[in-house]
Amino acid sequence: MKGFQIFRRASTAIRNRATPSKLLIVLTFGAAGGAFLAISDDSPFRSLTAGESGNDGGKKKKLVVLGTGWGGTTFLKNLKTSAYDVHVVSPHNYFTFTPLLPSVTNGTVEARSIVEPIRNIVRNKPYNVEFKEAECYRIDPVNKKVYCRSIQNLGHGENEFALDYDVLVIAMGARVNTFNTPGVEEHAHFLKEVDDAQKLRRSIIDCYERASLPTISEEEKKRIMHFVVVGGGPTGVEYAAELHDFASQDLASLYPSLKDYLKITLLEAGNHILPMFHKKVTDFANEKFQKDQIDVKTGSMVVKVSDKDISTKNRATGQIEAIPYGVVLWSTGIATRPVIAEFMEKIGQAGRRVMAIDEWLKVQGCDDVYALGDCASIAQRKALEDAAAIMKTVDKNNAGAVDVGDFKEFVKDIYERYPQVRKYLEKNKLKNFEALLRNAQGDSQKKIDIEALKKALSEVDSQVSFLPPTAQVASQQGKYLAACFNKAGRCEKKPEGPFRFQENAGRYPFHPFRYTIENPFLFTALLLFTFLVIELTGLSICLVGAGVISYKHSGQFAPLGGEQAAVQFPGDWVSIGHASQGLWYTVYAR
Amino acid sequence: MKGFQIFRRASTAIRNRATPSKLLIVLTFGAAGGAFLAISDDSPFRSLTAGESGNDGGKKKKLVVLGTGWGGTTFLKNLKTSAYDVHVVSPHNYFTFTPLLPSVTNGTVEARSIVEPIRNIVRNKPYNVEFKEAECYRIDPVNKKVYCRSIQNLGHGENEFALDYDVLVIAMGARVNTFNTPGVEEHAHFLKEVDDAQKLRRSIIDCYERASLPTISEEEKKRIMHFVVVGGGPTGVEYAAELHDFASQDLASLYPSLKDYLKITLLEAGNHILPMFHKKVTDFANEKFQKDQIDVKTGSMVVKVSDKDISTKNRATGQIEAIPYGVVLWSTGIATRPVIAEFMEKIGQAGRRVMAIDEWLKVQGCDDVYALGDCASIAQRKALEDAAAIMKTVDKNNAGAVDVGDFKEFVKDIYERYPQVRKYLEKNKLKNFEALLRNAQGDSQKKIDIEALKKALSEVDSQVSFLPPTAQVASQQGKYLAACFNKAGRCEKKPEGPFRFQENAGRYPFHPFRYTIENPFLFTALLLFTFLVIELTGLSICLVGAGVISYKHSGQFAPLGGEQAAVQFPGDWVSIGHASQGLWYTVYAR
Repeated sequence: MKGFQIFRRASTAIRNRATPSKLLIVLTFGAAGGAFLAISDDSPFRSLTAGESGNDGGKKKKLVVLGTGWGGTTFLKNLKTSAYDVHVVSPHNYFTFTPLLPSVTNGTVEARSIVEPIRNIVRNKPYNVEFKEAECYRIDPVNKKVYCRSIQNLGHGENEFALDYDVLVIAMGARVNTFNTPGVEEHAHFLKEVDDAQKLRRSIIDCYERASLPTISEEEKKRIMHFVVVGGGPTGVEYAAELHDFASQDLASLYPSLKDYLKITLLEAGNHILPMFHKKVTDFANEKFQKDQIDVKTGSMVVKVSDKDISTKNRATGQIEAIPYGVVLWSTGIATRPVIAEFMEKIGQAGRRVMAIDEWLKVQGCDDVYALGDCASIAQRKALEDAAAIMKTVDKNNAGAVDVGDFKEFVKDIYERYPQVRKYLEKNKLKNFEALLRNAQGDSQKKIDIEALKKALSEVDSQVSFLPPTAQVASQQGKYLAACFNKAGRCEKKPEGPFRFQENAGRYPFHPFRYTIENPFLFTALLLFTFLVIELTGLSICLVGAGVISYKHSGQFAPLGGEQAAVQFPGDWVSIGHASQGLWYTVYAR
Repeated sequence: MKGFQIFRRASTAIRNRATPSKLLIVLTFGAAGGAFLAISDDSPFRSLTAGESGNDGGKKKKLVVLGTGWGGTTFLKNLKTSAYDVHVVSPHNYFTFTPLLPSVTNGTVEARSIVEPIRNIVRNKPYNVEFKEAECYRIDPVNKKVYCRSIQNLGHGENEFALDYDVLVIAMGARVNTFNTPGVEEHAHFLKEVDDAQKLRRSIIDCYERASLPTISEEEKKRIMHFVVVGGGPTGVEYAAELHDFASQDLASLYPSLKDYLKITLLEAGNHILPMFHKKVTDFANEKFQKDQIDVKTGSMVVKVSDKDISTKNRATGQIEAIPYGVVLWSTGIATRPVIAEFMEKIGQAGRRVMAIDEWLKVQGCDDVYALGDCASIAQRKALEDAAAIMKTVDKNNAGAVDVGDFKEFVKDIYERYPQVRKYLEKNKLKNFEALLRNAQGDSQKKIDIEALKKALSEVDSQVSFLPPTAQVASQQGKYLAACFNKAGRCEKKPEGPFRFQENAGRYPFHPFRYTIENPFLFTALLLFTFLVIELTGLSICLVGAGVISYKHSGQFAPLGGEQAAVQFPGDWVSIGHASQGLWYTVYAR
């Protein structure tokens, strides 16, 4: 691996420590202890510091990490404690820089440039680590075991094995959501892994080669050269745009006789493409696509895919149409993996669509298991549910009603524990929490009782939102969780989190996870220069390959082909056109 | 494709000509004509200039090129006449820089960096060209047709097609010679295509991942980590050395626990590895391998390969041993492809091992068909066969015997037509042809009669040798053949080749093909610098990708891993050790 070679050359002087696989070191973080052992589900990182009583005393704790995507890899990269024997299980022995997958398909970026071996990433870490190239197919939270299957076909019972864990981090991502549409699994392409990108590239080139054969009829040529993208979200839109660039520039010059046969269609079941963006962005994308002759069909639900036709149902008229195609890319969002769904049933989350984790990324209803990235979603605690507990805390004398000013002591904790409060204040242009309470009470002179508090909080809870299933969220969660593991000892002694209203005593050891939106222009002056140098010298591999994984960035971004992109920054500031995609990718590089 | 992108960027200003597929232009090269039409097999390029009478008059001639390896690609690259409609048929729509395949397996070079799309190579050429991604499975020299099959599974009769040709260039290469050893096709790896290199790489990494699983026994781990290379020629030796470097450096640092399980074995059926090299080279390689703990087993003939064992027969003792292995690379030379073997039967070459071409690369026994590279071998005309014709030419007065001095007029032609003469003179330290004749005659005073000439020539013919099936030979042949096509018109008018002794009149239009051995140090000062810059900036893609295909080089080269290589230069000068491989590869870059 090139990046890897560079890494190796740069580090030949550093000798690898030969770490014995089991070290007999007792690790305790000072005076910590069982302070929070009694508190069950609501206590994050309960097991991170306190040694479990019984037979595993004297050994390092066994931390099993499932998955090596954005979440798992960022976690491993940032984990800096030697308190664990770490076992990583993933069907991929490398991390993939997924934002560049469409570029791999189009050949502007080398496949190997966007992957990095996990073993390389975890080298020279303070923790012992073993990697197993296998897929976890069952999680047993009762016996604390994960069951895994090698991705190689070994036979003779060598294929499957089980791993015990003391602490489990699930970062397995999600599967593609096909909505059980017949034929999608068999005939459509996806764009989640580097293999997918290479297969898609091969399929597109195959279409061009096939259409160049002398035995192909005109009609067949038209079919072969019709590329369909299903899903009008950022991925689908980006890919349709990149495919247009690839076809109209590179491929048109290699296959000039096929230029006029090319057709690209974007199918979206909803009424708009890019529904999560500002309308200005959607309009801009639509205009750009019209100019590029990409046929955008909204309100078109795919009902079936055969080897040569894709059947859509017009949601308005109910009419079903079979469209001949050469290549279909399916990009309609994600769904829960079967192994996670089965695990959810075991821990009492059977009804949910996505696995619920608390604000500290601990899986709800299960001890010592954390989850992050696309496979889980934070179930933000509703403020209303804790109204009585908050009232009890503030109303120290049990008077039944308190002054607005009495909340002052706890406002910071309320803001942190229930971030929806602040969002609501901002949205409604309220100065502070006191103003909200006064509004709810109606009379600025009256004291605040439980009913007034409930009224205020019920409005606030409307601002609870879900984080998008993006690389950015997964990566920030991985970093956050690793930081918690790293500082667990210190934080048990001196907790840094918000006040525990429910228990009316003590604080959470850690701040809850917060998705950070930063201004990407902060670092761009320097990084744009770096990127240009890198772009020009073909060293993009260093940028990506050397493992520059941790990043935070802003808003959302949809490359639209050419030099144009639609960017939505915080505060709904919309930048349209002429935004360099290179500029954007620099935000990943921090 | 990166290189391709660079190319595109650099050439966006140049518009592609939209060339109609059939141009109605009558091309005649001056006064050429039927001068040599009567002369059949012995007349190279008969059809290159003279328009065939009848129904194809008024159209461009149809030139079909089979294959896009070193031979075919170099031919296409150097073809500069607009006299043809060119059709290229190959199962690969790209050219592969094969000397770097082992580096692709080891990950030091990107797979995409060593391939270049054929359509890119033939863009903006003066000839019209159409590429078909298909495999030729039958050649019909009677009806001048080639039958092709698309490499994609199309069905409905779309898979197969036939192409007419006026002139055919066969550059299909050879297949791997398995000697019909059972299990080789199924279980062994080859290293001929870029796909092979990637598969081999994946298999090696798979072995490491498999050996890392907790379910694998010690014995099985040893088996998995045993890599066997079959064949002690330059390819096998190079690969064993590169594999050792890859495993002992890169992989050892990623999989430190498997370091002691690694074993590399090189099997060779003969008594020595690198038998075509000087003994000093062989000894050096043996020493290097011993130091690197690569187990070299000579006299070991492989008799069977199963999925887990490779069975060898000791040629001395006859003992058969089954050796457990993880990966086998098979590299024991080449054999004729079935399509060529069938074609050879049709043209009266049934008994031969390799298809015979004359010194002008024309297939013997067949009009308008040329062949080059590994699929054919030049059958050098024996001087003895033409002894009578030569005598007749020199003995202008039919005296039955001539003076030694009478040969002077024809010596240059004899040297060119029968290059073995010169080789013989050099080897036996004879000053010139006259000295040879005098030696044969025994008496310096006597005249030379036919018997004396025959005696001289029969000794000379011992120096007829075959060219090795290398990229260098194929590439030089491609360039040579293209040059002949380019200058066909001029050379028909003013032939530049040797005298036609057999016909006792006229000259061959072209010089015969001669494999050129040049001193590679000529260009290295400049190119080594370029290479270093390229190596450092990761721009090796430019070097290779931009299509620097034409080259000539010297002797033979066997990289032995690390910074060591054995090089055999002309004049048997042997350079041992510390030779930079980079230095060597620069010779490809000219």
